[in-house]
Amino acid sequence: MEKHVVVIGGGFAGINLIQKLKKAPCRITLIDRMNSHIFQPLLYQVATASLSESSISKPLREIFKDQNNVEVRMGFVVQVDRQHKKILLHDGHELFYDELVIATGARHSYFGNPHYEALAPGLKTLQDAYKIKQKLLLAFERAEKAQNFEELMEHMVFVVIGGGPTGVELAGSIAELKNDTLKKNFRHIDPKKARVLLLEGFPEVLPAYPEPLRKRAHQDLVSLGVEVLTNTKVTNVLPNGVETEKGFYPAEAVIWAAGNEASPLLKSLHTELDRQGRAIVGPYLHLPEDPHVFVIGDASHFKGSEGSPLPGIAPVAIQMGAYVGNFLKKKTQGQKNPKPFSYFDKGMMATIGSYKAVAVSGKLQLQGFIAWLAWLLIHLVYLVSFRNRLVVALDWIVHYLTGRTRTNRVILKPIEELEKEN
Amino acid sequence: MEKHVVVIGGGFAGINLIQKLKKAPCRITLIDRMNSHIFQPLLYQVATASLSESSISKPLREIFKDQNNVEVRMGFVVQVDRQHKKILLHDGHELFYDELVIATGARHSYFGNPHYEALAPGLKTLQDAYKIKQKLLLAFERAEKAQNFEELMEHMVFVVIGGGPTGVELAGSIAELKNDTLKKNFRHIDPKKARVLLLEGFPEVLPAYPEPLRKRAHQDLVSLGVEVLTNTKVTNVLPNGVETEKGFYPAEAVIWAAGNEASPLLKSLHTELDRQGRAIVGPYLHLPEDPHVFVIGDASHFKGSEGSPLPGIAPVAIQMGAYVGNFLKKKTQGQKNPKPFSYFDKGMMATIGSYKAVAVSGKLQLQGFIAWLAWLLIHLVYLVSFRNRLVVALDWIVHYLTGRTRTNRVILKPIEELEKEN
Repeated sequence: MEKHVVVIGGGFAGINLIQKLKKAPCRITLIDRMNSHIFQPLLYQVATASLSESSISKPLREIFKDQNNVEVRMGFVVQVDRQHKKILLHDGHELFYDELVIATGARHSYFGNPHYEALAPGLKTLQDAYKIKQKLLLAFERAEKAQNFEELMEHMVFVVIGGGPTGVELAGSIAELKNDTLKKNFRHIDPKKARVLLLEGFPEVLPAYPEPLRKRAHQDLVSLGVEVLTNTKVTNVLPNGVETEKGFYPAEAVIWAAGNEASPLLKSLHTELDRQGRAIVGPYLHLPEDPHVFVIGDASHFKGSEGSPLPGIAPVAIQMGAYVGNFLKKKTQGQKNPKPFSYFDKGMMATIGSYKAVAVSGKLQLQGFIAWLAWLLIHLVYLVSFRNRLVVALDWIVHYLTGRTRTNRVILKPIEELEKEN
Repeated sequence: MEKHVVVIGGGFAGINLIQKLKKAPCRITLIDRMNSHIFQPLLYQVATASLSESSISKPLREIFKDQNNVEVRMGFVVQVDRQHKKILLHDGHELFYDELVIATGARHSYFGNPHYEALAPGLKTLQDAYKIKQKLLLAFERAEKAQNFEELMEHMVFVVIGGGPTGVELAGSIAELKNDTLKKNFRHIDPKKARVLLLEGFPEVLPAYPEPLRKRAHQDLVSLGVEVLTNTKVTNVLPNGVETEKGFYPAEAVIWAAGNEASPLLKSLHTELDRQGRAIVGPYLHLPEDPHVFVIGDASHFKGSEGSPLPGIAPVAIQMGAYVGNFLKKKTQGQKNPKPFSYFDKGMMATIGSYKAVAVSGKLQLQGFIAWLAWLLIHLVYLVSFRNRLVVALDWIVHYLTGRTRTNRVILKPIEELEKEN
């Protein structure tokens, strides 16, 4: 009988894996809680209204409609039972596997402070992005209709916690939202006077990047009007602001971009996890003690050539997915094991507002406009389908060439409901 | 001092009115519960995943950013006090007006059965459209993972109640969703076997259209696989289906497109309302007893040349808005009253799936492909902005030229939340 490969998670790792198994003699079940694959690197543009939810998503069923050995199933996996080689779904159903691939990604980590979540949403899903967009836009609506709007503007502070790529991209994008997009939209307040604070515990933003790029990113953020506060560790998040070692910052909205932790599902594997809850995998990306359970993407801890785990970025997930896909293909065809996994580091990049970015690839370091052009091109090339690519291109043309308008600002709920929520 | 014109509602009527007042010596406050104007005639395409929410919406603040005499305010008006010329908002604020324009549109009417609403959502807002999309897509997900999917498919029935333009367009679009869009998306069920029922109490669908077009629309629906049940009055909506005079129809999802009623705000006017709750207005579109309160668009009952009230369609709202805009402009400039309002009937149209439509304009009657082309062109021309027009054009190109794919199928919530809701 054909082997049954179960893949949990339809992110970059999961879909790249499955595509490699197109002609393999196995049947595949892909399980995801959502009906669509999300192009995560552009989530911050949804949160700041440059792109629509549809632009960065594609239905999983659509992606695999022509791959007959794949069955997509919407479900939430609550437990893995390695002993009996089965998984348990939220609705009580069980599925048996021959090979299991866990590609469940990561959520943001509040470092043992789960009560922060309600006050400071993170940015990992479309729902998160929508929540942040709503929070940002509603803040201006409230200020505009307040009786004492002058006073209120003093409290119009948006705080982004965490100076990694997500925090930097979000802060730059929020700065443009207030500086450019909302220009002339209000009559009582000046949106430009809102403040954007980026808090980072380390001495510099983008700590994973080389020195000159860290400096340049900092400088570019400042020129957009972002107040970059490094060496500033957050000690508490409150409904009205953020407490740090350096003092209290009142805030209208707080966004969390400070850390990740792997999906809690991994705990049910009863295998060694690192501090971020990621499963430590061997050279072939499966658990050291179980060759039938693979963990890839952001949920995986694989020691790279420099001894530290690979970063939680799309290229790592894509390469891990493709590797295990080929590995399983050979295995199902009865061929010998291939070489151990090794990561080909193409580099990394982060945008700072429109027209600026930093990028590093091997010894090549780019910054400013040229880095941004590279970013633009690469992200368009990797977008999941023809239609998305064109819609995103169009949105970007309108956005970048016409004074950074953001046309994806619609909020589905009426004001009286919104005000009850926030 | 400048006169204060308060406009409630940023639909077609409201925005067309305000644009006419661009150079008038008055200040204008536009109040809406939502932050965006919605292009309502295309809502059914959002509900059936052909277009994204952003494609048919534009922020009200963006529309009026260059019109300095307009202030936009997100708010829900709970009461009009004509005696003191003021309105009361949901948050307790009051606003005084010199001239008041009520353009609050209509909601669907359940004819005294408000408990139908939870079981059979209507289609008037983006939130409605999103809810319907979620309901439709989730139905297929459920069938696919059921143990006894053969049996379940027998219950895969979608019922649209009401054979007016909204019901016809929705039914045709749902038929294509199951026939074409979801093809090859599932492994256990055949989406094509789902059934779409259109229930109409009158002897024919599109009763407002001329005889040959009614017949043609019926025929086109049938050729798409829609089961058109005319002379079928609904007597009750239950969680598992619809009771009619002719019997019970089990249904997985029921959508209400059977009737409208004006916003309940009109009751606080203490003026004469018709049976649909619309305010009966005089020749200048204001209340007969109050020349400072205008009611336009779907909330207005204005007797057309044939004695019956004008239909609740976009062209009527646009012309009424433009008329009152010009009326108020002259009034604020101290000029004489213009001629009474008269509606220039350009006609009406409805699509039946892709490539087919019926349209009537004066003595001209169009049907089939040529009517659909006319529909396509007119809707693109009237779309609210450059970007929306291009994105919609692009979505339509992909949709119509590539086998009716629908790429806007993303649902923001995970399955375990969705299942609790439905």
